[in-house]
Amino acid sequence: MGEVVYFDCHVATMVERHGDPLGRIEDGAIRVVDGRIAEVGKRADIESDDAVSLGGAWVTPGLIDCHTHLVFGGNRANEHAMRRAGATYEEIAEAGGGILSSVRATREASEDALLSSARKRLDALAASGATTVEVKSGYGLDPDTELKMLRVAKALDGHAGVSIVPTFLALHALPPETDRTAYVDQVVNETIPAVAAEGLATSVDAFCERIAFTAEEVERVFEAARAHELPVRLHAEQLSNSHGAAMAARFQALSADHLEHLDEAGAKAMAEAGTVAVLLPAAFYCLRETRTPPVDLLREAGVRIAIATDCNPGTSPTLSLPLVMNMAATLFGLTPEEALAGVTVHAAAALGLSDRGTIAEEQRADLCAWSVTDLNELAYWIGLPGPARRIVAGQII
Amino acid sequence: MGEVVYFDCHVATMVERHGDPLGRIEDGAIRVVDGRIAEVGKRADIESDDAVSLGGAWVTPGLIDCHTHLVFGGNRANEHAMRRAGATYEEIAEAGGGILSSVRATREASEDALLSSARKRLDALAASGATTVEVKSGYGLDPDTELKMLRVAKALDGHAGVSIVPTFLALHALPPETDRTAYVDQVVNETIPAVAAEGLATSVDAFCERIAFTAEEVERVFEAARAHELPVRLHAEQLSNSHGAAMAARFQALSADHLEHLDEAGAKAMAEAGTVAVLLPAAFYCLRETRTPPVDLLREAGVRIAIATDCNPGTSPTLSLPLVMNMAATLFGLTPEEALAGVTVHAAAALGLSDRGTIAEEQRADLCAWSVTDLNELAYWIGLPGPARRIVAGQII
Ligand SMILES: [Zn+2]
Ligand SMILES: [Zn+2]
Repeated sequence: MGEVVYFDCHVATMVERHGDPLGRIEDGAIRVVDGRIAEVGKRADIESDDAVSLGGAWVTPGLIDCHTHLVFGGNRANEHAMRRAGATYEEIAEAGGGILSSVRATREASEDALLSSARKRLDALAASGATTVEVKSGYGLDPDTELKMLRVAKALDGHAGVSIVPTFLALHALPPETDRTAYVDQVVNETIPAVAAEGLATSVDAFCERIAFTAEEVERVFEAARAHELPVRLHAEQLSNSHGAAMAARFQALSADHLEHLDEAGAKAMAEAGTVAVLLPAAFYCLRETRTPPVDLLREAGVRIAIATDCNPGTSPTLSLPLVMNMAATLFGLTPEEALAGVTVHAAAALGLSDRGTIAEEQRADLCAWSVTDLNELAYWIGLPGPARRIVAGQII
Repeated sequence: MGEVVYFDCHVATMVERHGDPLGRIEDGAIRVVDGRIAEVGKRADIESDDAVSLGGAWVTPGLIDCHTHLVFGGNRANEHAMRRAGATYEEIAEAGGGILSSVRATREASEDALLSSARKRLDALAASGATTVEVKSGYGLDPDTELKMLRVAKALDGHAGVSIVPTFLALHALPPETDRTAYVDQVVNETIPAVAAEGLATSVDAFCERIAFTAEEVERVFEAARAHELPVRLHAEQLSNSHGAAMAARFQALSADHLEHLDEAGAKAMAEAGTVAVLLPAAFYCLRETRTPPVDLLREAGVRIAIATDCNPGTSPTLSLPLVMNMAATLFGLTPEEALAGVTVHAAAALGLSDRGTIAEEQRADLCAWSVTDLNELAYWIGLPGPARRIVAGQII
């Protein structure tokens, strides 16, 4: 793959430098060798024969979307329209809406159909700046469909240059055809072993909430994940405080996500375990929630904060990471620096990845070159169009 | 320019048909002759030799953004960052922030610099589906700079295929160097006559609000506009009820915009005068306002509702009409049908244009072809990427 130097750019390395959490280098340059970063510094300090101008752009790490439900059948535009026209949740459910409509459509869809619709969404997410995207299963609710979704996620890998990180969302909703205990039994005894045997996911997720699964049910699943050496993550404290985040921390969860109702004990437990907080402001916006996650608590406890699209057909149909950065700033009060860390270095941590998320030696050369005069513009515009250029493993794509 | 038939598409004509306000025609076709629509109907009913497939897309009128402040110097990303980091309005003003920072940057910028930055923003707005965009002056606050802004708006016309509709925003903020009466005198006696003489605007706008101008000051300006045969529009009832909408209606205003605090008398006055309500949900979002415009009152009174980006550097830095459609649905409860009418037929009415906004004989052939399976998707996605194709005056661009 050879060597290339990118110059005529400013660099946000995301490695703290002289007290600047973004580690900014103005008039910088980046040497890439064989898809990895070999050197980053001031332009004047980096020799180059074969140098490529980035036209004065600000360069950040390629963006990482660490929480999506990108693979699904159908969409729920009709249900959205019914809601705006005043339909109640009961009326929508009677008309076949809600999460089970996505389950039905996902079960019915072929792998090819799922792949083709997910590719289109991934194109948009990539255009917004993503170079790594986590993709969850969870609309199958039976072993065959869950495995089908994870195979689709695997087949997506590399599309539009994006690395896919697949997650088995073991407990998302209760399937209509079975009871709670039988379902959790099946997940523990059948689906997790099958996912692990095929190597189809790098972590296991669950939804701990009054309307979803109890902490005890989630613990059974997390123990099965541990037995198969799969790290865990959790949808926690979105609509109420179920103390899910603290429980996830006991399992050294990579992340706890949503967290609108997180309390101080939960934040402390996360900090001690190194569990990353993943905030999902587009879901908060879409549901017109009013209780914001306790950002100050997270800051004080020293929990790393990531942000993500939560792209899903029911509560967060969005495909833009810069829009989510703006929502995190506007709705949750994150600073632009926190928003940028949330889609780079902290998002990598949420995925357990140490080879990306910063611009430093040995890291993957996944980069975005933004045509802005001020890095703060990324979170300032309400949905900045994507970067002028994306660079994946050192190549402009 | 010749003739072309677009087929392999479904059409939202936006002309009521069999009780459907969107006037949908499935398996439709559109014949264009010399940049105008000559015929629209079922595919089977339209003869064609030279037919162009739109690949099964849904076709809408080209989108119309009827309220923007697209021309300005600088941006306010830094001020946005200060606010997120906890700075008060006083601290921001002391650091040179606020609207007067945009005034300063706009006064200092050359026409070329203003044109070049506005073109970049117009590219994004066009990519989101816009084919007609209103552009206001209002960051000059002196005759020379206001005229400079309007010349830039004129020079923007046709860029990315977009028709520009220029508005003289006569009363936006009080300039730092003058007193209220002297300023309104200058607008009435000097700037409006100069704008009219050069034909630089097709309407006159003002901002009626406690923090801006009184109804009496606005009336003086509206009378001057009338004397020069320029229709008027008004930023009204955004932060408080100043009864601006009713006053605007007395002047047969084309539109009254914002309207969060509109009352029933105002809505009735607007309905009688045919004044269009322009709602600006991205500004509402950006300011984290909580009082929504009285959509039910507007519906009951029979006021046409348009929606727009309000693109501006301080309170609505956004460049996507589909995102604004989603915000109108999510935050204000508009139905997807109302959101679509708001950026097509009703937006045309807000601009006093009768040659666009619907797909019907004699209309300009400005069209968007959307790669969606369901028209409701336009308002469903939180910022749907733009149309697969835009067609301007009959040509794919
Ligand atoms: Zn989720
Ligand atoms: Zn405005």
